[in-house]
Order: sequence, then structure tokens, then C-alpha cells
Amino acid sequence: MPYLNADLVRRVVRQALEEDGAFQDVTTLTTVPAEQQGRGVFLAKEGGVLAGLPLVSAAFEILDRSIEVRASLVDGAFLEPGMTIAHVEGPLAPILSAERIALNFLQRLSGVATATRRLTEAVDGLPVRIVDTRKTTPGLRVLERYAVQVGGGQNHRFNLADGVLIKDNHIAAGRARGLTLGQVIAAARAGAPHTMRIEVEVTSFEEAGEAVEARADVILLDNMTAAEMKRCVGMIAGRALTEASGGITAANARAIAESGVDIISSGALTHSAPALDISLDLDTEAG
Amino acid sequence: MPYLNADLVRRVVRQALEEDGAFQDVTTLTTVPAEQQGRGVFLAKEGGVLAGLPLVSAAFEILDRSIEVRASLVDGAFLEPGMTIAHVEGPLAPILSAERIALNFLQRLSGVATATRRLTEAVDGLPVRIVDTRKTTPGLRVLERYAVQVGGGQNHRFNLADGVLIKDNHIAAGRARGLTLGQVIAAARAGAPHTMRIEVEVTSFEEAGEAVEARADVILLDNMTAAEMKRCVGMIAGRALTEASGGITAANARAIAESGVDIISSGALTHSAPALDISLDLDTEAG
Amino acid sequence: MPYLNADLVRRVVRQALEEDGAFQDVTTLTTVPAEQQGRGVFLAKEGGVLAGLPLVSAAFEILDRSIEVRASLVDGAFLEPGMTIAHVEGPLAPILSAERIALNFLQRLSGVATATRRLTEAVDGLPVRIVDTRKTTPGLRVLERYAVQVGGGQNHRFNLADGVLIKDNHIAAGRARGLTLGQVIAAARAGAPHTMRIEVEVTSFEEAGEAVEARADVILLDNMTAAEMKRCVGMIAGRALTEASGGITAANARAIAESGVDIISSGALTHSAPALDISLDLDTEAG
Amino acid sequence: MPYLNADLVRRVVRQALEEDGAFQDVTTLTTVPAEQQGRGVFLAKEGGVLAGLPLVSAAFEILDRSIEVRASLVDGAFLEPGMTIAHVEGPLAPILSAERIALNFLQRLSGVATATRRLTEAVDGLPVRIVDTRKTTPGLRVLERYAVQVGGGQNHRFNLADGVLIKDNHIAAGRARGLTLGQVIAAARAGAPHTMRIEVEVTSFEEAGEAVEARADVILLDNMTAAEMKRCVGMIAGRALTEASGGITAANARAIAESGVDIISSGALTHSAPALDISLDLDTEAG
Amino acid sequence: MPYLNADLVRRVVRQALEEDGAFQDVTTLTTVPAEQQGRGVFLAKEGGVLAGLPLVSAAFEILDRSIEVRASLVDGAFLEPGMTIAHVEGPLAPILSAERIALNFLQRLSGVATATRRLTEAVDGLPVRIVDTRKTTPGLRVLERYAVQVGGGQNHRFNLADGVLIKDNHIAAGRARGLTLGQVIAAARAGAPHTMRIEVEVTSFEEAGEAVEARADVILLDNMTAAEMKRCVGMIAGRALTEASGGITAANARAIAESGVDIISSGALTHSAPALDISLDLDTEAG
Amino acid sequence: MPYLNADLVRRVVRQALEEDGAFQDVTTLTTVPAEQQGRGVFLAKEGGVLAGLPLVSAAFEILDRSIEVRASLVDGAFLEPGMTIAHVEGPLAPILSAERIALNFLQRLSGVATATRRLTEAVDGLPVRIVDTRKTTPGLRVLERYAVQVGGGQNHRFNLADGVLIKDNHIAAGRARGLTLGQVIAAARAGAPHTMRIEVEVTSFEEAGEAVEARADVILLDNMTAAEMKRCVGMIAGRALTEASGGITAANARAIAESGVDIISSGALTHSAPALDISLDLDTEAG
Repeated sequence: MPYLNADLVRRVVRQALEEDGAFQDVTTLTTVPAEQQGRGVFLAKEGGVLAGLPLVSAAFEILDRSIEVRASLVDGAFLEPGMTIAHVEGPLAPILSAERIALNFLQRLSGVATATRRLTEAVDGLPVRIVDTRKTTPGLRVLERYAVQVGGGQNHRFNLADGVLIKDNHIAAGRARGLTLGQVIAAARAGAPHTMRIEVEVTSFEEAGEAVEARADVILLDNMTAAEMKRCVGMIAGRALTEASGGITAANARAIAESGVDIISSGALTHSAPALDISLDLDTEAG
Repeated sequence: MPYLNADLVRRVVRQALEEDGAFQDVTTLTTVPAEQQGRGVFLAKEGGVLAGLPLVSAAFEILDRSIEVRASLVDGAFLEPGMTIAHVEGPLAPILSAERIALNFLQRLSGVATATRRLTEAVDGLPVRIVDTRKTTPGLRVLERYAVQVGGGQNHRFNLADGVLIKDNHIAAGRARGLTLGQVIAAARAGAPHTMRIEVEVTSFEEAGEAVEARADVILLDNMTAAEMKRCVGMIAGRALTEASGGITAANARAIAESGVDIISSGALTHSAPALDISLDLDTEAG
Repeated sequence: MPYLNADLVRRVVRQALEEDGAFQDVTTLTTVPAEQQGRGVFLAKEGGVLAGLPLVSAAFEILDRSIEVRASLVDGAFLEPGMTIAHVEGPLAPILSAERIALNFLQRLSGVATATRRLTEAVDGLPVRIVDTRKTTPGLRVLERYAVQVGGGQNHRFNLADGVLIKDNHIAAGRARGLTLGQVIAAARAGAPHTMRIEVEVTSFEEAGEAVEARADVILLDNMTAAEMKRCVGMIAGRALTEASGGITAANARAIAESGVDIISSGALTHSAPALDISLDLDTEAG
Repeated sequence: MPYLNADLVRRVVRQALEEDGAFQDVTTLTTVPAEQQGRGVFLAKEGGVLAGLPLVSAAFEILDRSIEVRASLVDGAFLEPGMTIAHVEGPLAPILSAERIALNFLQRLSGVATATRRLTEAVDGLPVRIVDTRKTTPGLRVLERYAVQVGGGQNHRFNLADGVLIKDNHIAAGRARGLTLGQVIAAARAGAPHTMRIEVEVTSFEEAGEAVEARADVILLDNMTAAEMKRCVGMIAGRALTEASGGITAANARAIAESGVDIISSGALTHSAPALDISLDLDTEAG
Repeated sequence: MPYLNADLVRRVVRQALEEDGAFQDVTTLTTVPAEQQGRGVFLAKEGGVLAGLPLVSAAFEILDRSIEVRASLVDGAFLEPGMTIAHVEGPLAPILSAERIALNFLQRLSGVATATRRLTEAVDGLPVRIVDTRKTTPGLRVLERYAVQVGGGQNHRFNLADGVLIKDNHIAAGRARGLTLGQVIAAARAGAPHTMRIEVEVTSFEEAGEAVEARADVILLDNMTAAEMKRCVGMIAGRALTEASGGITAANARAIAESGVDIISSGALTHSAPALDISLDLDTEAG
Repeated sequence: MPYLNADLVRRVVRQALEEDGAFQDVTTLTTVPAEQQGRGVFLAKEGGVLAGLPLVSAAFEILDRSIEVRASLVDGAFLEPGMTIAHVEGPLAPILSAERIALNFLQRLSGVATATRRLTEAVDGLPVRIVDTRKTTPGLRVLERYAVQVGGGQNHRFNLADGVLIKDNHIAAGRARGLTLGQVIAAARAGAPHTMRIEVEVTSFEEAGEAVEARADVILLDNMTAAEMKRCVGMIAGRALTEASGGITAANARAIAESGVDIISSGALTHSAPALDISLDLDTEAG
């Protein structure tokens, strides 16, 4: 199901190539003649989950349509160090000019997919979904959410326009006008499209109780310990979905999942995933 | 001298706001009335270097021109935990809708400036410049290079189009056609604008020797130990500038600088700088 | 709560002005000198609901910043024939060049708001919400949805990306693979963000039963009579929200609402609302 | 001769698909696997004139290049209820995601072509041309003018920049400065490119006389009865082209044409043409 | 009447500034501190007609809103060597960064206006209009046509879409299908909007006769001598407008105008007008 | 090595076609049926250097993908009057609609290449490079720099962002703050990327001396006589590269080159190169 539209991929990659000056790569244009051919191989240098092949293909194709990319794997494949990911072959100069952008996207998205995989593995067997947040790289949200899916995770709301999440400041704004949490939730439900659930962020057992009374559909338990979460989940008793958020790591994810929450969200999946080490080894021909 | 054009800032921020759905923030629009006012304060939660205030102002202004941002500090200021960075005041709803984007840019760029500062402090007193690389976030290169300057660093070439850097693959491509390194350098010098220096990446003492013989203007010593670098610098003896690259950290930067290199470049400044912890504390009024 | 971001309004209006050649209006530029002043008044020619004033202001401002628009009413006001909506005053030439675009948006959006109002009035006092659909004018969805809100209606999902609506073809696609409706719903729930409700379109009492058994959150009753809907609503008994769709008119809306459905959606609100008759009467001065 | 540039079609359709979220259709992506195939047929549900096939092809191609559209008819074909318009075949998921946009354009443009056809048939045999106006949908003027041509009509000026039409307000502006209609016309003729005719809008026999005396090339008779028009046409006696405008319907068009006017313009062709009923019936395969 | 929309001016100028790297002017940013102030004066170095002041203002404003431009003259003013055109004052760095773009537009457009003026002066007192052609600089057509107006000339059709000009190849295409010139003209008249005149390019007296018989509205006499044109004009005898084209210079324009043609068009006005010599003399302050 | 990215070419050409209304060429669409075929040949009408073929291909392809362009020569070829450059064949109508844009680019760029060639020939055998300047046509810098390369020249810095050139105003700004030229140069070197050389513009022997003492990498000798330049070059004695600028023509270039300068830059190559005379002769078929 992870899906990236080809048209959209081309536009993102083209902008990155322009930013990088790849259409006027002065070093390559002065040292590599147009007719010289080359070939290269993308190799995994560490284990992880592959994500971003469509961007690699687009990067080379935009530079020169005669470059051929032959993938040995597909997005979602499990990488072992040394595994061959894809071959690239064609005129060497445009291969060199696009190399960094291609690698950059592949390493970054594979990093996100791999970080996601670590978290989904940590909760293996438990009925919980791992989701991303809005803490994505500006301009790359569609890509990074795709990588989260490739890594076995799922997506939270895409942005402020397509999901309701009542946060502390919304609640405080209501209280300043004399509204209870229930009244704030009712306002959101009354105004939001009926296709959206109403999610509310709470920071204590008491607030969680207030939220479930106010018929929130989803209750985000913010920065609680696994024990606190467990207590909240027990009290909520299935009357709302529960989402754990704040400080999730591969180390503590299982404990948190065992608290019984339905969803674990992690901003680190996108804002702090280290790039996966992937290399492009090139081989050049004489002419 | 660090400079960000206001027009350019507006365009980057507007795209980020659109991606985040900030113009149709369903939660805020349903729970906060247009006339409710609010005020907030940006606070440093950890020490570091501030960078990104122009983006904060732009984010709020694009949402609503009547929001006022009053900065207490300027980009480049040294932050201590608890310091007030800026105040924001105006209609609460658009403040909430722009909050995440404003913080996101501020944290990210302050993170880059802070990481740069760590490195410049590590080499304090030594005649070396700390520079960035092309390993920046796609779409944000101008901003991240600005943050590097704010942190006391300097910029490498902007992209492939505005600087010559002959890498291993360019050299290999030449060798495959029977060219020596000197001939590859000569080709670059002959073809590149005369305003550009010719920089060459080498990985050994021997290659460094070959490069200096071939009259490279700058020699990038890739992934060498401080000792190897020192040997190269001694041999080069001022006939070319020297740039150290690969695996630079705040811990090893001083040792590397003491090898006598003129420049230290670090991709980590931009691709791995942790976001700086900055909060926006909001206060709402009844009407 | 209806909200239109000023930045977004400017972009839509500028494109319309460009398409209409308003920046090079040859008739006006050749017959009206730049210094001639004029004033005009927007008048309602028929009753309805006003929507679109921000676009009127933007149209004149983009042509010439010295044109002043003073609104007598606000979006959402009830218009009686002859009522004054707004005054415009300034250099006559740009007023004439922007006139059609300003009126065009005002008439179209007021038409949508008025049609929505007719429907909300028809169901006055009943616990049902009137919502739009995706059958909007290409390029104008944000504006038309705003007009629906101004008219007292609410919005359905914005587009395919921000809400789940399982239609006959999705169900058929599942059945072709041997899946039950319940299994199709389960697939959507498993894959969609947890912030989204799962809505299913059904065309018969039997399908409605199947959908509610399969735990759909919202059941769209497509093209049923009020009697059929009533029977479905009774059977569903609050276990899911119900949405009536297909052939809704101001004439039959009340009967349908009395069937007990929670939501009535109408594509006609946007694709068939007649433009509201509003005029701009101009007065010119000698110089 | 009706012509739509393929490049331009792609841009309009892509924007519509983006607005509709078709690149992230959550329902389809979660319920229809990428490998499932489907086929569909576009069927006329009522009689009319077909227009818009290039947009249908573009919509599917942008979603997925492997979708094949095979048209059975061409734009301009006369549709009878039940006639097959085109077949679509390929991966089912992108077919579903593009379906609404494809149908939307096809129904809308066929509606314009059909409305135009009704009017051209109403004046069949008479020496009059049916033309559109500037009252088109914002952003779709090129498409709707194409549909008018497909329906047998012709186009008026494209916009304010490419044709002269002196309206009441231009005349009034001149009179306020002491100019006669003749002087206003002279100003337009002196300033406009010599490739443009000068058209003047009049509302009475007297004004028509004044306009013809002032050597207008085209006289627009605004909102007159057929009898008034006939009187004007007789008086003008071929010294200028005459255009009838205002309140034209298929019912009164013939009477108006018989008044002897050369051109009949109708804003309703584009702003009020009902969409033509066309369906897309889909058939899915198991895999 | 010459008019340039401010919005459009900003977009063109911004693109030019971006192309020129003015937002990252490394020389200025490293050698001129942000607080240093400067002032400058635009001076005419040769006689001519001024055109392009709005672009000058836009260039400086886009770089820095605090720069003030005070014009001493207006577009259309006659320049004598040494005359002061405008003063600019404010922060020196952005003045330096925008200087070249500002001057470039001012010199280029003033050059076009001046060349136009030379031609209009050459035909002074004769009833002929001097017009431009489509031979403009790609991307700058709106600006260059404005400059032609500023210089006292007028505009031909803007582009292929807004005027009919039947050229030799159109005639040949018709003849290849067995059509006479009259039939080609009839086809254009039948298909083109009724607001357009039909212009035909001819290269001989015989063709001119054929065109006038075929009721062309405008006849373009291509590359004829003044004597040939006079003969054609006499034969046409007012039945069509006549346009002289091909090889027009200030030296031969009067003779050609005396042949009695109504219009003289010159591609050289835009494609070969030498830039007018205008300087920007700068003065800097200490701080 | 001269290289133009195909993607970038398409974007520039598409904009030019849009500006020219080529997608709605009313003359051609009304007089040439879609099925009529045509063929044409691009012929050199004068001697020169060919540049711009990729833009010709793009222009026709964007109008209609079925048009075939077969080049007989490649960019850089030496043209003699009468030589065949390329054949174009396909549907006649889009060939006619794209003709002017295709020719316009080809003539303009070949003009630049030819002017460059004249200069490189003038200095044949001397160790000097001929380079362009920033005085290019707004929007076409990439193309014109390509044409300079095709003509045997080389490029100066692309823009303000990618090269340092300290001009009189930068020096004056420094002096106003009490800095010597050496201190200004030091500031630029300290702030600019280490990949850039520092170039300084001087207007006298004394300034040249000051610049070389201050260790400028390149010294631009502005508007000096060949004799003055020779004196400067002798004094500089290889300690810096030297660039001659100002008033360079094919007539004086050799004398200037013989002064020993390393680089000759000429703005006239791009801002004053006359378009090369190239024609497109068309032949039409009956159907």
C-alpha cells in the first residue's frame, strides 16, 4: 500500500537538483566528456529497511533520460550490510551530477523506514500501531510519511487541516472563556467535518477522565510513564482510543505498548532518524 | 554579515505553512473564536546559539498581519536556559496555527548554529575556518548555510554549479581515459570560470603530493587521521590551502586543527545537528 | 468561524485577474485617463446570503493599492433586494478593470451561501447538519467550502486524502477478491490514520445492515427515499452516524431530515447554485 | 479546428487532481491492492455533444502511465443515451483515484458544448454566429471556450487585453469629462492595436445611432427585444456588425437571430450550462 | 496611458534578481556592513526618452524595503546628458546588490523608448502610427511594449492568440489545398473572434490587389520600396488599412510614411534598440 | 562540454511559447486544418556559429509531439550562407505556431556564439581566454552563457552569489570606513567561501599595484588602453591573473591580448550580439 505518485516525486527531485546546481555541475562538465560511460551499484553499508528507490530513478532520469536504473530490491526490503540495492548505467557525467541527491533521498528515507522498523519490531505481537507526527522535514512530509509506511508504521493526520487534535492551548483558550473541556470538545465536534474523529491531548489521569466523559474519540496521553498510561487505559476501558506520545524510544516502546494503548506516536521517526549508510560505487569506462 | 533576504524567507515559510495545512487548521478554527487574543513567549530550554528569528516573524505575519512579534534578542545571541527570546501577541487562533512551523524553523536553525558554535569553540585561537558541506536538508540549503554563519562558521561552495571540487570519481574517470591527476586538474582549470579555485579531494599522502604538484589551489584531505594530515600539511607547505573532511566532531576538531589545515568541513553541522530545545509558552485572554 | 486566509485569497484572485487580462485592459486604458476618479456601490438585486467580500477587496487592491473598499456588511449577512453591500472608491480605470472578477467571485460565492442557507432553513430545528461534497469547481474548492460555512452549512471531507469514504467500486473491488464488506472496512480502518472515521456508502437496507455490523462509523445512504432512510436509521439505532445523499432539494430536505439522518450532503450546493444577483453601480468624476 | 494544447491540458488536470487529494487517496490505497486490475466504460446517460476527452486521458495518465484510455468517439460527437464514449483499463486503484476529476471535466465541458449546440440549432440556417462571453469559470476559460467551439459556437474576445468593448461605464467616464460617444470611440481606436475592431455596447436605438455615426465596428445591442434589435439593425444597415446580448435562451434565440443581428452572445453557455450526465461504469478483476 | 501593473513588475524584477544571485551577493555581504548607508543618483549620460522607473523602484524595494527611491522625472521624460533621473538612498549593501538589475532594465527600456521616439519624430506631422512587432525579448514582451508606448509608439497584436495576421505560409498552406487568398481570408474571418480585424501580409502589388478584393481589413506590405507602397496605397484607396514592414529605419521612415501607409511596424524597436547610457553614481557614508 | 539540461530547456521554451500565445494561434487554427502536413528546412543566410538546436527541438515538441526535427549539424558547427541546419516535418499547424519562437532562440543564441567566435579568432594563438559578463538578457543567462561556450569562449562568474568581484563602490565603501584596499580584500577573503578567488577591479596602474600587494587573485583592468594594460601586466608579473574589460571589440582584441592579460571579458558578447540570420523555409502538402 505505501504509494508515491510519480509526478510528485519528479517535482520534489527536480527542485533538489536545481538547489544543488546539478544542471550546471562545473567540475563534472569540465572533467568528464559527454560520451564517457559509467556504471555504479548502490550498496547497503549497514542493515535496515530500504525506502526511496523511486526518487533515485527520478534523479537520474531528470538529468539524462538515457541513464538506466535497474533495482535489485524494492522499497521495504530488509537490507544486510553489503547487499546490492540497484545498478545504474549510462553516460557518466549526469550520473555524477545526480549522485548526491539520489543518495541523499535514499539514505534519509531508508533511515526513517529503518527507525520505524525498529519501533514496530519492539512492539511485535502487541495490538498497537506505530505512527508518525507533524515533526517532519519542511517540504518532505509526503516522502517521510511514505517511508514510515514502508517501515511498517502508519500515519497520523497529515496536517492541521485534515485531523482534529485538541491540545493544551486549545483547552486553555476555552477555559479562559469559561468553557469546560467537554464544551471545547463539543465545539470541535460541531464544527469539524463528520469524517474526523476528535482527539484530545491530556497530561494527567484526571484530564483523561474528563476527556472520556466528554466523549473524545481518541485520547492522547502526553509524556506519561507506562504505569500512568496503564492506569488511564484501564479507566478509559475502551470508550476511546488511546495514543501514547512523548519520549518514545525503541527501548521503552514495548513497555509503553504493554500499557494497552492503541497507538504510539513518535516525532523522532522523522525528525531524528539517522540516515542509513548506503553507498554508490562507481566504475568508469574509457569512452 | 549573515543575511537572509526577507522575500525569500516569506516564500519558504509560506510553503511550510501550506504543507502543514495552517490556513485551514480545523481544530483551532472550531475551538478558538477569531476575536480571542493571546500572547506568548519563546523561551530557551537549553543553552546554544539563536538562529531563525526572521522565519518566526514571517510565519505569524503570513497567517495574520496583526500579530506582533517583538524580539528580545537577535540571531547569534548566546542562549542560556530560561532566557526570553521573543514575545508574540495578537489574535490567538492564527498564533496557534503558525506555532509549530515557527518553532520548527527556530529549533532546527538554532540547532545548526549551536553545533557550528561547538566546533568553532573547539578550535578557538587556531587559524582554521569551520565550514559546512552540501549535505543539507533538501529545500533548506540557504537557511542552513545562514545558520552556520550565525554560529560562527563559514560556507563551502553553495552547490555543484559554483565551485570546483574534483572527487575520486572524477579522477577515476580521467584515469580510465589515460589522464593523470595533473591533466584532470588542468581540464577543470581550463574549463571552469577563472573566479573559481580548483579543489581536489585526496585520500593519501601520495595523492596529496600529486595534487600539489599538479597545482591544485585547495586540497581536501579526506578521512585522514590528524597525524596523516599533519604530514600532508607539512609536505604541501603552503603551496595550496588544505581542507580536512570526514568524521569531524567537537571532540577531535582541535587535534585536527592543530595539524595545520586551513579549513575543516563538517556535514554533521547540517545533517545531524540536533534541534535546539526552545518552547513557546502561550497565555490566552478571555476575549 | 468561517475563515479564508488573506494570502491564499490574493493568489486565487491574482490568477483570475491574469486570466481575464485585467492588467492590460485595452478598452479602459485607452478611454479612461489614470487620474480620473470613480466610486461605486455593490448592491444586492435579490435576497440571499453574502459571501466573498475578502475577494472583492483583494481584486481591487491587486489592481491598485490606492482603491478603497468600505464594506457595509460582513460575509454571512442576509441580503434584501436593494441593500448596500460595499462602497469602492479610487482611480476609475483599475476599478473598471477589476470589476468583473470582483463581481464574479461575489456572485458565485454568495450563490453558494444562499443555496446552503435555503437548505439549512428547510431543516430548521431538526438535529441534522447540511454538508457539501467534492463536486466543487476545479480550483475553487477552498472558496466554495468557505461559502457553504457562511451559509450555515458544514464541510464534508476536503478531498480524497483527508477522509475515508468507501464507495460501491471499493466494495466491488473487494468482493472480486473474495472479501466481505466487513473485511473491506477492516482494511480501511487498519490502513487509514486513526484520526479518520470510516464512512461507507450503501444503497439498500441490507447493505446498511451489513455496514453497521461491520462497525462502520458513518453510513452514507445513497439515493434512498425518506421512508427507506427512516427504516435504515431505525435499524442502525445510533450505532453509526447516517448521511443522506442524492437528489436533495430544498423541497425534500425536511422530509429527509425527519427520517432521522444525522447529515445531509448536497453536491448541488456547489455545482448547481445559481449566482446571486449583485450589481456594481459606478459613478465617475470629471477628473 | 477546436484545439487544446496537450501541455496546457496536463497542467490544468494536474492541479485539479492535487486539489482533490488524488495522489493520496486514502480509501483506495487502503482497500485496493496495487496489482488489482480494472476496466471501465464511459457511457452517455443523456443526449448531447461530447467535449473533454483529452482531459480524461490526461487525468488517468497523470495518476498512472500504464492506464489505457481508448476513445470510441471524438470531441464533437453527438451523444445518444447509452452510447459508449470511451474505455479505460489498467490498475484499478489509480483509475478510482482519478475517476471524479475525469468525469467532472467531461460532464462540465460536454454540458457547455451541448448548451452551445442547442443555441446553434435554434438558429439553424440563419446567418448568425453564437459566441461566448467572459462569464467563464475562473481558471477554466481556455477549456470552456474550447467546449463552445466543439458545440458549434465561436469565441468572443478572450479577455480584457485582446479585444475592445466600450461599455456603459467607459462611455459615462468619457461624458463626465465632456466627451461624446464619438470621442470615446476615437480614443479607443487611437490607442488600441490596429488589429482590433472597436465594439460599443448600447442600450437604445438612439445610442445605436450615435455609435454607428461614430464609426464603431461592432455594436452590441444590450438587453433589447427582438423588435428593438430589428429596428437597430435596419438603421445600421450594414455599417457595423451587430451583436445581441442579454437574456438569450434556446427559446428566444431564433427570434433574435431573425432580427438580423450578426452575432448572438450568451454568458449562460458557460456560467449556467448544466453538466451533461455521463457515467463511468467500472468492472474489477480479482487480481 | 502607458501602464504597467505593479504586481507584474515585482514578479519580473524578482526573477531577474534571483537569476543574478542578488539575494546572496557574496562580495557585498563580505565587504559592506549592514549598517553602512549610501546614496546614489541615476544620471542620463546621453539624450533619449526615459522608461522603466517602476522597475528601478521594485528592484531596490525587493532587496530592502527601507531603501528610498525618489524620482526627479517620470517615464516619458526627454533626457539630456547629465540630467538627474532619480535619487536612491538607504542601506548601501542592498543598493549595491540590486544596482545592476535596476540599471539593466532602465537602460534597456529607455533604449526601446528612445528608438521609438526617433521613429515617431521622423514621421512627425504625418498621419501614421509607429508600432512594434512580436520580435521582443523572451519574457519581457509586456515591458518592451510599454516602452514603445512611452516612446510615443503603439502596439501591434500582443501575440498569436490575440490578432489575426495571415502570412505567406498560411496562404501557401491554403493554395496547397486549392484555396484562393480570398478563401483563406474567409476562413480566418469565419473562425476568428468578431472583435479581430483580418490582416494579410503581401509582397507584391498583385497580392495586395487580391487581398483588398478579398476584403482584408489590414494589408501588410512586406519589404516593399516606398514607391511600391505608394502604388499599393493608391490602388487600395482606403478600402483597407495598410501597414509597412521590413527594413524600417529612422532614415527611411519618413519616405515610407509619405507613401500614405497607415501603420509602420518595426521589429528593430525591440530587438535592436541599443541600451540608453544611464549611470548610477554612488556615494557612501562611514556608517 | 557546452551543456544544456533538457528539462531546463523545456521550461524556458514553454514560457516563451505561452507569452507568444502559441497554444492559441488564431490565424493558424482558423486557416490550417489539423491534418495538413508540412515540412521545412532551417537555412543559414549568413556565416557564423550555430547554437540553440535543443531549443528548436523543444519548441516544436511542446506544440506537438509528432513533429520531427532532424538536425543536419550540431551546435558549434560553422555555418556558411545557404547551409542546411535542420529539417522539420509533421503537422503544419503547430509547426507554424512554434516557428517564430524556434527561430528567435536559434538566431539569438547563434548570434552570441558567432560574436564570441569573432573574438576568439581575433586572439587566435594567444594565451588568453574570452569570457562573458553578467550583462545578459534577463531570464536567459543560462542559455547565453551556453552560447558563449559554443562560440569558443568561457564563462565569468554566473552571478553575484558565486564569485567575488570587488568593484569601485565596494572599495569606496571601505575607504569611507577608513579601510585600505588591502583591508577590503582581506574582508572578502575572510568571508567568502574558500573555493572562490578574490577578484578586484582597478582603473589605474597605482590601484593595480595596490591590489597585487594586497594579494588579489585576479585583477580586472577596467577601461585601460592596451599600453596601460601592458604596463600593469609587467608590474604584476604573474602574481595575479589579469582580466581586461571595457570597450573590447574584434578590432582591438588582439592588441589587448598582446598586452599579456590572461582574460578578456566582453559584455557585448551577450548584450549587443546581432542575431544571426537564419530562415525557416516551409513547404506544405495538400493534406
